[in-house]
Amino acid sequence: MAISHKIINDPVHGFVHIPKDLIGTLVEHRFFQRLRRIKQLGLTEFVYPGALHTRFHHAIGAMHLMQLALNTLKEKGQAISHQEYKAALAAILLHDIGHTAFSHALENTLLTQTHHEQLSLLLMQRLNEELKGKLDLALAIFQDQYERRFFHQLVSSQLDMDRMDYLKRDCFFTGVSEGTIGSDRIIKMLDVENDTLVVEEKGIYSIEHFLNARRLMYWQVYLHKTTVSTEQMLIQIIKRARELTVEGKELFATPALAFFLGHTLTLEHFIANPDALEHFIALDDFDIWSSIKVWASNPDKTLAQLCRMLLNRQLFKVEWRNEPPTTELLAKKEELLDDFLKKNKIPYQQRHYFITQGKVSNAAYLPHHSSIFILKKDLSLQDITEASDLPHLKALSQVVTKYYLSYAK
Amino acid sequence: MAISHKIINDPVHGFVHIPKDLIGTLVEHRFFQRLRRIKQLGLTEFVYPGALHTRFHHAIGAMHLMQLALNTLKEKGQAISHQEYKAALAAILLHDIGHTAFSHALENTLLTQTHHEQLSLLLMQRLNEELKGKLDLALAIFQDQYERRFFHQLVSSQLDMDRMDYLKRDCFFTGVSEGTIGSDRIIKMLDVENDTLVVEEKGIYSIEHFLNARRLMYWQVYLHKTTVSTEQMLIQIIKRARELTVEGKELFATPALAFFLGHTLTLEHFIANPDALEHFIALDDFDIWSSIKVWASNPDKTLAQLCRMLLNRQLFKVEWRNEPPTTELLAKKEELLDDFLKKNKIPYQQRHYFITQGKVSNAAYLPHHSSIFILKKDLSLQDITEASDLPHLKALSQVVTKYYLSYAK
Amino acid sequence: MAISHKIINDPVHGFVHIPKDLIGTLVEHRFFQRLRRIKQLGLTEFVYPGALHTRFHHAIGAMHLMQLALNTLKEKGQAISHQEYKAALAAILLHDIGHTAFSHALENTLLTQTHHEQLSLLLMQRLNEELKGKLDLALAIFQDQYERRFFHQLVSSQLDMDRMDYLKRDCFFTGVSEGTIGSDRIIKMLDVENDTLVVEEKGIYSIEHFLNARRLMYWQVYLHKTTVSTEQMLIQIIKRARELTVEGKELFATPALAFFLGHTLTLEHFIANPDALEHFIALDDFDIWSSIKVWASNPDKTLAQLCRMLLNRQLFKVEWRNEPPTTELLAKKEELLDDFLKKNKIPYQQRHYFITQGKVSNAAYLPHHSSIFILKKDLSLQDITEASDLPHLKALSQVVTKYYLSYAK
Amino acid sequence: MAISHKIINDPVHGFVHIPKDLIGTLVEHRFFQRLRRIKQLGLTEFVYPGALHTRFHHAIGAMHLMQLALNTLKEKGQAISHQEYKAALAAILLHDIGHTAFSHALENTLLTQTHHEQLSLLLMQRLNEELKGKLDLALAIFQDQYERRFFHQLVSSQLDMDRMDYLKRDCFFTGVSEGTIGSDRIIKMLDVENDTLVVEEKGIYSIEHFLNARRLMYWQVYLHKTTVSTEQMLIQIIKRARELTVEGKELFATPALAFFLGHTLTLEHFIANPDALEHFIALDDFDIWSSIKVWASNPDKTLAQLCRMLLNRQLFKVEWRNEPPTTELLAKKEELLDDFLKKNKIPYQQRHYFITQGKVSNAAYLPHHSSIFILKKDLSLQDITEASDLPHLKALSQVVTKYYLSYAK
Repeated sequence: MAISHKIINDPVHGFVHIPKDLIGTLVEHRFFQRLRRIKQLGLTEFVYPGALHTRFHHAIGAMHLMQLALNTLKEKGQAISHQEYKAALAAILLHDIGHTAFSHALENTLLTQTHHEQLSLLLMQRLNEELKGKLDLALAIFQDQYERRFFHQLVSSQLDMDRMDYLKRDCFFTGVSEGTIGSDRIIKMLDVENDTLVVEEKGIYSIEHFLNARRLMYWQVYLHKTTVSTEQMLIQIIKRARELTVEGKELFATPALAFFLGHTLTLEHFIANPDALEHFIALDDFDIWSSIKVWASNPDKTLAQLCRMLLNRQLFKVEWRNEPPTTELLAKKEELLDDFLKKNKIPYQQRHYFITQGKVSNAAYLPHHSSIFILKKDLSLQDITEASDLPHLKALSQVVTKYYLSYAK
Repeated sequence: MAISHKIINDPVHGFVHIPKDLIGTLVEHRFFQRLRRIKQLGLTEFVYPGALHTRFHHAIGAMHLMQLALNTLKEKGQAISHQEYKAALAAILLHDIGHTAFSHALENTLLTQTHHEQLSLLLMQRLNEELKGKLDLALAIFQDQYERRFFHQLVSSQLDMDRMDYLKRDCFFTGVSEGTIGSDRIIKMLDVENDTLVVEEKGIYSIEHFLNARRLMYWQVYLHKTTVSTEQMLIQIIKRARELTVEGKELFATPALAFFLGHTLTLEHFIANPDALEHFIALDDFDIWSSIKVWASNPDKTLAQLCRMLLNRQLFKVEWRNEPPTTELLAKKEELLDDFLKKNKIPYQQRHYFITQGKVSNAAYLPHHSSIFILKKDLSLQDITEASDLPHLKALSQVVTKYYLSYAK
Repeated sequence: MAISHKIINDPVHGFVHIPKDLIGTLVEHRFFQRLRRIKQLGLTEFVYPGALHTRFHHAIGAMHLMQLALNTLKEKGQAISHQEYKAALAAILLHDIGHTAFSHALENTLLTQTHHEQLSLLLMQRLNEELKGKLDLALAIFQDQYERRFFHQLVSSQLDMDRMDYLKRDCFFTGVSEGTIGSDRIIKMLDVENDTLVVEEKGIYSIEHFLNARRLMYWQVYLHKTTVSTEQMLIQIIKRARELTVEGKELFATPALAFFLGHTLTLEHFIANPDALEHFIALDDFDIWSSIKVWASNPDKTLAQLCRMLLNRQLFKVEWRNEPPTTELLAKKEELLDDFLKKNKIPYQQRHYFITQGKVSNAAYLPHHSSIFILKKDLSLQDITEASDLPHLKALSQVVTKYYLSYAK
Repeated sequence: MAISHKIINDPVHGFVHIPKDLIGTLVEHRFFQRLRRIKQLGLTEFVYPGALHTRFHHAIGAMHLMQLALNTLKEKGQAISHQEYKAALAAILLHDIGHTAFSHALENTLLTQTHHEQLSLLLMQRLNEELKGKLDLALAIFQDQYERRFFHQLVSSQLDMDRMDYLKRDCFFTGVSEGTIGSDRIIKMLDVENDTLVVEEKGIYSIEHFLNARRLMYWQVYLHKTTVSTEQMLIQIIKRARELTVEGKELFATPALAFFLGHTLTLEHFIANPDALEHFIALDDFDIWSSIKVWASNPDKTLAQLCRMLLNRQLFKVEWRNEPPTTELLAKKEELLDDFLKKNKIPYQQRHYFITQGKVSNAAYLPHHSSIFILKKDLSLQDITEASDLPHLKALSQVVTKYYLSYAK
C-alpha cells in the first residue's frame, strides 16, 4: 500500500517525497525546523555567495537519497521490511540534528565540552521519548547496534547518503560545477553482501571519481582561504565576547546566546538541565549575526573592530604553508600588526585576537576505517584501494596536512 | 585597456566579473554588503526550501547581465562610452539598495510612510556624496533623467536586467525549472533605435515566452498560498509587536528593530536624521528572526502564539476567491476561530490577528507602461502586443485579481 | 516481484529502465532498432547542429515517462494491472514505429499513398503475430478501443507522453533551453476520473506553460526558416530522382531507395507484398544521404545542383507571408531565378525545382479535440480553456497560418 | 572594430560566435561541412544512445573555447594580434579535418598506410592554396613551427581546447554527468610565461579534476565493452568486404567506399591523385552504414552474418584481462564458436572473423610529453606532477593496459 506523502521541490534532486507518517512528524518537529536557520556551509557564502543552503535542506536531501538506495537494494532482492525502511529514513534525517550555528567554529569556543554527535544522539533520544519508542530501531541503526550493519553504513560511512547529498548540494549552490558526483550511478551500483554495503565491480570508476570530487571540494570550498579566514574571525569574536561576559561587561545578546556565553556545558549538563537543551534548540545563525551587528558599535574596541571587519568583509589574510610557522615568523608577523593596532586603537596585549594559526588536514579516503568494499564477480569483497587498477586510490588515502597563518592587515 | 576585476562564482550565470574600479568599491561598501542579509524572496523558503538567495547575489547577477547587454549593443555598433558603461553598471547594482528585510511585508507595517524606491535613491545620493560625484550619471540613469533613455530601460522597464536576473535566479533556487527564461537569447536580440531599447523582430517568441514564464512564477512562487500565509503571519507579528511597544511593554529587540517598532518615519525623517538611516542600514532579516524566536515565549499570548506558529511552520490556511469575501462569510470564518482562541487562551478581541484578507493582482505585461518595442524590418517600432501574431499577448496584458482569506486553524 | 531490467543512460531523463520481458524484446527487434537510423528532427541539424537525436531515443524516453505516469496514478490509488502496465509501455514504445526517413518530407514524395500511422499499425500487427498475441492489449490501447480510455490518452492526446518527451528532448538537443517543460511536475499532477485523464486544478499553470513552450518550439525550431528551406530542397531532390527513374535513367541508389523511387505504394501493397515491407524496414536516413552524395555528380544538372547545394549548405532563401503569394509575385520571383539557372546551366523549364511555396499552420491547443481536462475540487471536469483565469489559453487555441516562398539564389 | 559574426546555438556552450571572415569561409567549405556526417564517437551510440554528436559540432565548440582562452590571455595582458587570433581559431577548427568515417576503426582496415594527422595537414594545405595563403600562420601553429608556442599548445597538448571541448561534449551527449569538467575555470586560470602555456597555481585542483574526469571517460565511455565490441565487428566487416573485393566478387558500395575497398593508399597517392582526395572527401558514416544494410543479405554468409549482427545489435561478447590470453585459452574459445558457426553455416576456416583480441591502454597524464606546467608564485614553472601535494598525479601518469578478447556467441 502506498504511503501518503508530501512533495517538496528540491533544485538539486527534483521532487522529494516526505512520507506523512513518522518522517512527516519528525520534519514538522521544532527540533528539526530549527535546521532551517543553520546554514550548511557556515561562512562559505563570503566566497561563494550562493552557498546559503541549510542543514534542513541537506537532511531532507539525504533522506531522499536513502529512499533511492533502499529501493535499489530491494530491486536487487534484499529483503527490507517496512519498519527497517522507516527507521533508516529517520536515522539519516536526524543524523546531524545536534549541530549548532556555525557548528565547527562554535564547537571550538561555545560548546568546548560537548561534541555535536553526542547532542544529535541526545536529541534523538528526547524525540524517541516523545514518540513513545518509535525511534528505537532508528537509534540502533544510528549507533551501529543493529545487526544488519549496511543500514548504519548508509547513514554513516565513507559512502553514506550524507556525503552523497552534501557533495552534490554544495556543488550546486556554490556553482563549482565540476564537483558534481554521479550519485544516481553510485546508488544503482550499491548492493549488500553479508550485511555489508558493497559496490558492484563496474562501479569502481564512479567511486574513484566520487573520492576525487570530494578532494576537490575540500580544497576548493571547505578549506578555501576565505572560509578559513572568516571562520577564524568568528572564533575570535566569540572568544572576545565570552571574555567580556566573564569580566562582567554587559553585552547585547539573545537569551540563548547569552546563556552560552556565560556557561561552559558538558553533556551531563545538557542531560540534567532541560533549560540548557531549550537554549540549545533556540540558538542558531540568527542569534550570532544579530548580536555581531550590535557588537560592531560596542565600546570594547577589539570586539567592535572584529565585528565590523567581518560584517563589511574586510577579512584576515591567510597564508598556507606545508610546515607549521616558526617562532621567528610568528614574531615577525605580530610586529607587522603594529600599524593596524595603532590605527584602530587596539591595545597591544590584545593583538592575539588578530592573528591565529592552525592546521587542516584531509584524506579523500581512509582505508581500514569503514572501508568502501567492491563486490568482485566471485562474490569476494575487496577494499577499493586494492581493487583499483592503479596506485591512484592509494594516493588518495594519504593524509594531506596544511598549516595556515591568518591575520588582520 | 582591460579593467582589472574580481571573479565571483555564480551558480546561475557562471563566472561573474566585478570590475575593480567604482563597481568594486560599491560592492565592498557596507550599504551593499548588508544585502547579504536580506533574502530575495523573503518567506518563500517555507514552500521552496532552496529559495534562500539574497538581494546581494541578485544585484550582482543583474550587473552581470547589464555587462552582457551593453557588450551586445556595442557589437551592434552602438557607441557607449566608458563612463556610460560604468554608470549603467552602478545604476543596476544599486537599483534595490533601499530594500529592507522582508521588504513588502514590512513596508506595510514598519515603514508605512516611505517607499523602498525613495530609500534606494536616498542611499545612492549618500554614496554619491561619499564618492564625490562619481555616481552623477548613474543617478541620472536611475531617475530616467539621462537623454539616452535605453540605459534607464535596461535598469527599469518591462524588459530590464533586474527582471532577467530575478526570474532566472528565482527559478534556479526554487527548482521550478520550467520557469527558466532564455536571457542569453533575449539579450542577443536587444538593440537601440532612437535611444529606445528594442527587440529584433525574430526575438518575439522569446519575449512571449519570457512574459509567460513571469506569469508562471507569479502564481507558482511569488503568490503561492504558503507565501501569502507566512507573509500575513509576519505582518500580524510586527503589528502586535508595535502595539505592545506603543502600550509601553518591554520587548526584546535589536536596537535597530526597537527603533522602527517605536517610530513611524517619513522620507523627511530619514533625510534629517542620520541615526534613522544608520538604523535602517543595520536592520535586516536577522533582527526580525532573532526577535521572533525570543518573542515566542513572550507573556503576551497573541504575540507568542503567532511567533511559535511561524517558527514551527503551523501556518495560516489560505483560501482564494475571484470575489472579495462577503461580510457573512467573514463573520462565519471568525466564528470558526473560537475553538482556536479558546485552546490557546487568546482574548476574543484579538481574533483579528488570526484572520486577514486582501487581494493580489498581476498582469504579465502592461502595454503603454514602458512598453516592450519590437524593431520591424522597416525600422519602425511596434508594441509587442501589436507585433505578435495572435491575441495571446493581449491576453497576457489583462490584469488578473484574486482575493485571499487567511486564518489560523 | 521486481522485473529484471536493463538500464540506459539518457542525458535527458537520467537512468531509464527497460524491463527485460516484452519491452526488452521489442527494443531488440530489428523493426525497432532501425529507428536508430532515423533522426527525430530530420534536417533541423542544419540550423541546430546538436539536433541529431533519433526516433529510437525518443521512443524509449516516452516509454520512461509512461512508467512515471503510471506509477503516479498507482500512488493515487488507480488500479493498474501488470498486463495494462506492460501494454501501455508497449503502445507508447511503438507509437511511431511506422515513420520512415525524414518522415514528413518523404511522405509527400515517396509514400504519397500511405500515412505513417497506418504503417505503425501494420508493423505492430506484424509484431503481434510474431509474439503470438502478446500485443493484443497494446493494440487496443493504441487504437483507442480499450474501455479505460486514459491509457490511450497517455499514448496519444494533447497531453500524451509522446509530446512530453519530444518537447523536452528537442529542447535539450537543440539548446533552446527556455523551451524546457516541467514534465515531472505535470506528471505528478495527472489523475484519472471516469477513465479520463485529468490534471489537478493546481497544475493549470504548468499546463499553460507546457502549451506555450510547445508554441515556442514550433516557431523557433520545427518551422524555422532553415528547416523549411532544407526540407523543400530534399523534396525537390526526391521528386527529380523519381522523375529520372520514370524516364528510365540509371540512378545510383540503395536497393530500398531504388524500390521506392520506382513504385507508388498503397497500404494494400504493403499488406499484400512482404518485399515492400522489407524495403520499408531497410529504408532510413542513411540511404537518402549516401545517394544524395553520389547524385551530386549526376549528369542531370538539376539533380546534381540540388544535391550539391544541400550537401554544402547553400540553402534556398525563405520568405514568410501572412497571405499566399500572388501570381504576380510568383512570376517576379521566377524571373529573378534566370541568372541562377543560366549560371548553373539548368534548363528554363526545370526552374520549378528551384522555387516552391506552401503554408504551415499551428495551434498550441485544440479544444474539442482530445481536450485537456482540469479536475476541479468538486470533482467536475473542465476543458482547460474554460478553467484558466484569462483569455490567454483561448488565444493559444487559435490556428496561426503562415505562407512561405522558398527559392534558390 | 567588431567583426560581424553568425551565432550558433550549442547545447553544450550556449551561443557560439562564428566570425564571418576567414572562419566563416572555412565553416562553409565542403571539406568542413562533411564533418556533419562523421560522428565524434563512432559506434558509442550502441551503448550511450545520445552520443550522436558530430566532428563538425566538436570542431566549432573547440573554436569557441579557443576564443574564450585567447580573450582571457588578452585580459591578462598578453599581446595577441588580430592575425594570430584568427590563425589560432582556424588551426583548432581544422585540427581534425583529416578524420574519416569511424576514424580509428577504419584507419586499421581501409587507410592502413596513412594517418589522419597527415590527411588533416594535406587538407589544410589544399585549403591554403584555395585561400591564397590566408592559412599560412594557422599551418605554422598547427605544425608547431610558430615561435610563440603557446598557440600550438592551445591547439594540441595535454591541456588543449580540443580535449576541453570533447570531454565536455562527450559527457553532455552520453549523459555521464559526473565527467563534467570545469572548462570555464581552467580557461580562466591559463596564462603564458616565456611563450609557454601555463596554469596559475590555484588552478591545480581543477587540473587534477580534469585529468581524473578524462580517465573516467576513458574507461566508462571510450573503452566501454560495447564500444570495443562494435568496433571489432565493424573492422571484421570491412576486412571481409575487402577480401571479397580482392577476390573479384561484386559488392554493393557507394563509389567512394568502392574506391577504398579496392585500393591501398599511401599519403603519396593522396598527394598525386586528386581523385583519391575527392573520394576521401566523399566518404563518411553514411557510406558505411548504407552498404552494411545491403550487405546484410549478401550471398557471402560471413559478411551477411556480421552485418546482420551489428545492425540488430547482437554484439560480440567482450572479456577483459590484465594479461594477454594464452594460446590455450584462445584455442578453447575458438572451439566454443563451433555451434555458432554451424548454426549460421559459416565455414570453419572463416571463424577468425568472429573472434578477435587486442589491447588498449591509457594514462590520464603523460609527463615529459607536452607537460602541463603550473606557474608558481615566484614565476617558476613546474610540471603538474611535481606541483601537486600528493603522489596522486604521479599515479595518474602510469599507463594502464588491458587485454580484450571479443567473440560471437
